[in-house]
Formats: sequence, C-alpha cells, structure tokens
Amino acid sequence: MIAVISGEACGPEALELAENVGREIARRGATVVCGGRGGVMEAACRGAREVGGHTIGILPGRGPEDSNPNAYVEFPIYTGMGFARNVMVVLSGDAVIAIDGSYGTLSEIAYALIHDAPVIGVDTWDFNYRGFTGQDKIVRVTDASEAVSKAIELAEGRRATRAE
Amino acid sequence: MIAVISGEACGPEALELAENVGREIARRGATVVCGGRGGVMEAACRGAREVGGHTIGILPGRGPEDSNPNAYVEFPIYTGMGFARNVMVVLSGDAVIAIDGSYGTLSEIAYALIHDAPVIGVDTWDFNYRGFTGQDKIVRVTDASEAVSKAIELAEGRRATRAE
Amino acid sequence: MIAVISGEACGPEALELAENVGREIARRGATVVCGGRGGVMEAACRGAREVGGHTIGILPGRGPEDSNPNAYVEFPIYTGMGFARNVMVVLSGDAVIAIDGSYGTLSEIAYALIHDAPVIGVDTWDFNYRGFTGQDKIVRVTDASEAVSKAIELAEGRRATRAE
Amino acid sequence: MIAVISGEACGPEALELAENVGREIARRGATVVCGGRGGVMEAACRGAREVGGHTIGILPGRGPEDSNPNAYVEFPIYTGMGFARNVMVVLSGDAVIAIDGSYGTLSEIAYALIHDAPVIGVDTWDFNYRGFTGQDKIVRVTDASEAVSKAIELAEGRRATRAE
Repeated sequence: MIAVISGEACGPEALELAENVGREIARRGATVVCGGRGGVMEAACRGAREVGGHTIGILPGRGPEDSNPNAYVEFPIYTGMGFARNVMVVLSGDAVIAIDGSYGTLSEIAYALIHDAPVIGVDTWDFNYRGFTGQDKIVRVTDASEAVSKAIELAEGRRATRAE
Repeated sequence: MIAVISGEACGPEALELAENVGREIARRGATVVCGGRGGVMEAACRGAREVGGHTIGILPGRGPEDSNPNAYVEFPIYTGMGFARNVMVVLSGDAVIAIDGSYGTLSEIAYALIHDAPVIGVDTWDFNYRGFTGQDKIVRVTDASEAVSKAIELAEGRRATRAE
Repeated sequence: MIAVISGEACGPEALELAENVGREIARRGATVVCGGRGGVMEAACRGAREVGGHTIGILPGRGPEDSNPNAYVEFPIYTGMGFARNVMVVLSGDAVIAIDGSYGTLSEIAYALIHDAPVIGVDTWDFNYRGFTGQDKIVRVTDASEAVSKAIELAEGRRATRAE
Repeated sequence: MIAVISGEACGPEALELAENVGREIARRGATVVCGGRGGVMEAACRGAREVGGHTIGILPGRGPEDSNPNAYVEFPIYTGMGFARNVMVVLSGDAVIAIDGSYGTLSEIAYALIHDAPVIGVDTWDFNYRGFTGQDKIVRVTDASEAVSKAIELAEGRRATRAE
C-alpha cells in the first residue's frame, strides 16, 4: 500500500500529477491509501480506479454525514478523529508520496519522518531547522512515474526489513 | 462494508460461526471490516477471502512490527491508537455483527449504540441498567446466514437514510 | 487521579451521588478526571471544586466552540477525537468510578477492564456473557464515601505495583 | 492554558529557554500543557512548578509503564495514541509556543496552523512551499519573556473571540 498525502485545495498541475501517481500505483499492483477527501486525494483515487486499482480513504469524520469521501474511494474508513487521522494514513502506507503543500501535508510528512516511513516528495514543502532539512530522508522527484517507481522500491525494501 | 466485532480468544463454535459470517458477507458482495487480529477476526477474514471477498483490518499498532494482521487481511490499516481503534471499526461498518464476548467486543457494541449503527448480536454480551438492555437496538440472531441477511438489510436501510 | 465515568443524562439521585463522589475525591487530596461534559460529570466536578480540589475534563471536541466544558472543569483537554476520548479518561485515572448507565459509560467500563484498571461501580451496568460478568474485577458499592475509599485504596495499590 | 511544543533531544540553550518560558507562563497565572516527556518539555514543566504553576502532560502511552511523565508533570493524561497525541497538546492550548526543531514539533506546528491556533516560534522550524511560509500566522520571537507575553496576548484575544 502506498500513501498519497496532499491537500484539498490545489492547482491543475498538482491534480494531473496526482492522477498520474494514482494510475501508476495501480498499474504496478499497489493500493492507494489517502485521506479520502477532494483535490489531490480525489485525483489520485480517480487515477487508480480508472485502471482497476484499489483505493482506501481514511476520513476525519464519523460517517458520510460529516465526512463525505470522494467518488473514487472504494473503501472508506471513518475515524471520527479529525486531523489526527493523518497519522493513520502515513502508518498504513509502506511508503508515502507527498504532493503539494497544505498544512495537513506538512503534518503528514512530519509523521512519516517520526515513524521512519520512506517519503517521496513531488512539489511539496521544504523545511529547515539549523540545517536539518530531512533531505537525507525525503527523496525529491519531479514526475509521477519516478515518484511511484521510487515509492515501490523503498516500500519493498522496507517490507523486507520488517519481515526479518 | 460490514463490521465484524469480536475477540481473539474464543471457542471452536465461535470460529466456525465467524468463518460462515465472513463467507456470507463476501458472497453478498459486501466487504468485511474488523480489528485485523486473530481468533474470530481471523476466521471472518478467512471465510471472506475463500470466496473472493475483500477484507480490511483496522489494527491497534503502528505497523506489522507491533501489530501483526492475520493472514487473511487484504488491506491492513495501522492506527497506532491501541484499543481506541475499536471505534473506527464500528464507524466504518454500515452495520455491525457482534460475535462472542470479550471486553473489546463490549466496548464496540457500546460505540455502535452511541453512534446509532445497526448491531446484530450472535452469541455475545447481555447488558442491563435499570431494565435498559439495548434490546430495542440489538437484533439477536443465532446463525451466520441470518446475521448477514439482517446486517445487509439494515445496512441498506441506513445507507438510504444517510443518502437523503 | 480518579476517573469518574458516567453519562450526561441522569436522574437527581445520580447527580447527588456524583457530587458527593467529587467532593470526597478532593477531600482526600486526589484529582477528578472525567469527560468534562454535563450531567454526572458536571456534578462530580462541582463537588470537587467546592472543596478546593482539581478537575480535569477530557473533551470530545476540538475546542470550546464544538465541545463546551462544564463550568467546574478547571483544566479542559480538547482531543478532537469524539467518543474515542473515552479511553483516555479511563487511562488517566489510577482507578475508575462508574456511575449510571449510558452507553458511553459502558464503553468506558469495557476499556477499564481491557486495561486492568480498578473499577468501582455505583448504580451502573450489569453485563454478562456465559456467566462472565466482570464481577471479579468490578467492586460494586452503594454510596459515595465507600466508592471513593475503595477507589483510593485500589489506586494506591496499583501505583505501588506500577512503580516496581 | 499555553501549550509548549518541542522535542526531547535538544541543546542547553533550548533547555534554558524552555525553563524560562515555563516559569514565565506560571508567573502570569497560566498553565503549561505539553507532551509530558523529557528535554524541552521537562524544562518547561520544571520552570512552571518552581514558581507554583500547574503543568499538564499529555502522554503518548497507556500508563506510566510505557510512557513515563517527567518529574514536573503535575497532571499526567495518558492517551494510548502515540504521536497522534500531538494534536491534543495543540488543541488544549489557547496559544502555542514552539521551541526547537524535532519532527514532532513540526507536526504540532502544522496542526496549530490547521486549527488556527496562535503560534509563537522561538528557534524552531522554517518551512516553505511556493513562498507560503506560515509567517503571517507564526509570531517569531527570540526570548522567553517575549514569547510568553505574545502567547498570553494572543490567547486572550482568541478566548474573547471564542466566547462571542
């Protein structure tokens, strides 16, 4: 499972990128797990579903009444935990692809780094504290295909380590 | 999605019942969502997978290192939230089937009643406070086929209401 | 810290009992931790504050806008996690006093039993599964003073064990 | 209540700063809420307790066995939710003071910005996405006294708005 982390509000480039990321994840036989809402999350789910892939949306609300999943979420998980659900999106991915720069995405990148999940960043936050930028842990790429290749490679490496 | 709530430790009857419940859920085209661990949860997942159904396990831990899913969980969701994940299992089901009587199951029945989720009880907790037994809200049945029929019926009614 | 678990809706007897429980907890130098809302929770907080005790309310919402604490909560903790906050109320008490019988209380008793927290029950749920009633783990009492004495005694025993 | 967010590992300057922040918060009659662990969190709690203030630690674990609070936490809240507890620290502060630059701190700053909590940053993360740096929302200061003055001022403004 590959987590796609991102915001709801975003420009057309991010949406196209996300759709390609979703499609590519599904083509390689992996499942998209994301926050289940609109924007980049919707685009990634749409891409995956178009080619027959599975999509899981981990939603902030208690049900469809207060937290409607996008139309391409196959399996909605309702947490009732608001933005604390962000950590679960990250934990449920064998690797994480971060697209765009909302604060939710920033919290998810931080959680991925805390939990040593591999992070691939495509057009997303830079951050810095006394020269500590996470660059040794974030793989920065520029296109969807590269993002997914790298994510799958790192996910497989991690699964092998975890299985030992 | 139908939530199957139950414990890990249980007798052979509960396991057989759970496997039948899982199989029946999958045959009717629904997905099993559960806590992802062993015992009844494993039996329900095995039943569903045997006939090609989907299974989601919402796990207490942060990853396979500290929270191994059973072998029949197709999509593991890691929450890192311990038993607080119980509420998510309940919220993610359109209806809930409760089997057996661990304390985790009791917490999940309570959450289902708080959130007005339909609950079908098969050989599970009785509870009572001044004559208030939840019996108006819990449908008690004795076999797997009846449990799933009732769950699907109530889930469909609920989805229709929610969509309005 | 003693957790007082209970519902919002309840009769005058439960309120009087809860106020006495809160007062007694404070008199013995302990702190009330509860769900922070109205009803029994408010009565317990009021009792404690009247005699100068501390009260902590662990609330379901994200802030006072969506989750107003009762007027006697000295320290409101906002979780944004809805009823999943119930487990935190239980975990934060060295012992748990359960008063009355809402479903939230039932979920909290279940969590206390899962986590081996001492539970004192005063006019609250009975439950039963194949003769398994938790009676070996729940101390049933009938008045506030007895409830608090027992809670403090069990809390001290537990703290001693935990410190080893 | 003022949230102090920070990491465990940090240099002597951050510790001294944090102790001064804690002391200053308490002197002004406010309560320190933090993650309850060591490092900067411990220093802030120590500062507050030295001058008779209250301190609340919102801990990741289920109890003292797996999540020991620092010695200056007056009221430990156990969540059992791991790093998802970070959002609660932020939600429970009327304003947030961020000190130092661990990834947990980064997640907390992100959560504060999501929830529109006032953030005062003292020697902490910079972040940037296409020129969006949160600078309009984060008040950067360089010493403890200024941090607390600003935090109290913003907290009071926020409380007034919330009460309307």
